[in-house]
Amino acid sequence: MRDQLSGETTSHINTTDLSDFEPVLHELADCSANVIMPFFRSKLDVEEKHEKGIYDPVTEADRGAEQVMRALITKRFEDHGIIGEEFPNKDPDADLCWVFDPIDGTRAFIIGAPTWGTLIGLSHKGQPRLGMMNQPFTRERFWGGDNGAFYRCGDQEPRRLATSCADELSQAVLSSTAPEHFSNRGGWEKFQSLSNQTRMTRYGYDCYAYCLLSMGLVDIVAEAGLATYDIAPLIPIIKAAGGIVTTWDNGDPAQGGEILASANQALHDKALAALAKS
Amino acid sequence: MRDQLSGETTSHINTTDLSDFEPVLHELADCSANVIMPFFRSKLDVEEKHEKGIYDPVTEADRGAEQVMRALITKRFEDHGIIGEEFPNKDPDADLCWVFDPIDGTRAFIIGAPTWGTLIGLSHKGQPRLGMMNQPFTRERFWGGDNGAFYRCGDQEPRRLATSCADELSQAVLSSTAPEHFSNRGGWEKFQSLSNQTRMTRYGYDCYAYCLLSMGLVDIVAEAGLATYDIAPLIPIIKAAGGIVTTWDNGDPAQGGEILASANQALHDKALAALAKS
Repeated sequence: MRDQLSGETTSHINTTDLSDFEPVLHELADCSANVIMPFFRSKLDVEEKHEKGIYDPVTEADRGAEQVMRALITKRFEDHGIIGEEFPNKDPDADLCWVFDPIDGTRAFIIGAPTWGTLIGLSHKGQPRLGMMNQPFTRERFWGGDNGAFYRCGDQEPRRLATSCADELSQAVLSSTAPEHFSNRGGWEKFQSLSNQTRMTRYGYDCYAYCLLSMGLVDIVAEAGLATYDIAPLIPIIKAAGGIVTTWDNGDPAQGGEILASANQALHDKALAALAKS
Repeated sequence: MRDQLSGETTSHINTTDLSDFEPVLHELADCSANVIMPFFRSKLDVEEKHEKGIYDPVTEADRGAEQVMRALITKRFEDHGIIGEEFPNKDPDADLCWVFDPIDGTRAFIIGAPTWGTLIGLSHKGQPRLGMMNQPFTRERFWGGDNGAFYRCGDQEPRRLATSCADELSQAVLSSTAPEHFSNRGGWEKFQSLSNQTRMTRYGYDCYAYCLLSMGLVDIVAEAGLATYDIAPLIPIIKAAGGIVTTWDNGDPAQGGEILASANQALHDKALAALAKS
């Protein structure tokens, strides 16, 4: 992916081949799924942890899965950093840093919908270079990096992912997790400005939406309030499938915030303009 | 289910055992899935059919699946009626009438999300008595009738479904397909009045939401603008799992319209009151 390799560190990154770590993504997906799946659709005690009454579904599954992934990396690659949702960062400025969100879409998880995913990323000098979304209930796995973007369901052979050619907003399917995410952060009017120009808008898919975009079925994803672990592992998948991902003001998306992903550059430019116009 | 058997036709319905038709539900699910699945996540030509520019995703998959289900019923039970989404009704006033929605959640289907389903129902004298939701991508099947409500995933043994015990709105998870469904029909304010009192609201799951309610994971589903084929096949599942389903004014839900389903009667009464208050 040429656009991941731009800037002053290009020559260094070019000599850093991360494809050897691709099997590690699959190992991390396997071991986290083993922890998570017994909790899926079991009754979770999500409220007990938060006595202040704020609904923040941090589950046993989430923490247990992050622990097994951290243990694997710490044992195997002791100089690598780790950024995760559930525990303090470990050497986040290390050249090679893993980024984990064991259950992206905790609300989907809690209601039993199969649209959450385990996000596993590897960044080099702060740039996301390798990433995976694992959905163990549907047995779907999406991953991407310098070798391309791939999808596998169950025991099927992996196949390459490619984004759509839709380059007009009026053709585009827009997805976002929930209207509430914007009303909490003041971006709702901007989002509406974009939504009103698209063919249709769907809510409710969390990380799954970026994977459907990488598959060519969703054309735009717009979200607000993302953390780095919500988006960094998805960036290499989106880019390797041919998509574009930036912040709403066309900046680096790796740290999260307001994120826009589009199937191609022409569509992305129009979506950025729609978000800016409101 | 005693509450399905109330009213003046009770004695007659009690003597009509529909459980013999349960294997037919599974046959219909199998044959419709065979037609639908080759189209799932293939590029659909959804726009060509509608030159007026209205987005109404009637797909080859939808029509083909309804045709094979109609053919099976017409051949096997020539005196039964058929109500379906895609073709004209056949003897809709027959004592035994099948109700088909081959792809409930066509928008989810088109974007590749695994939250659509094939709805298959059997009504006796206008009352939904047997119903199934089949999701062939996740290999999930939910069905219900006089014998109870059941779930099966893949080759697993069927297990019984039961709704949740949450009887306060503040504990309840509310689900609905999309905010747009209300703004088109003037029910958005009523829905908001309910939504504001619940623990959380999720969008995007179509028929899948009623199945998650039957599984005890979603507590309330509120929707507007449903047709009879959108809801009739789901009613026996919801009721046999212990749930309550009516229109927003507590009427018979079998013809569709504004539909409210709740995990139990105490919660349903509070949800009806919230919808009425706005």
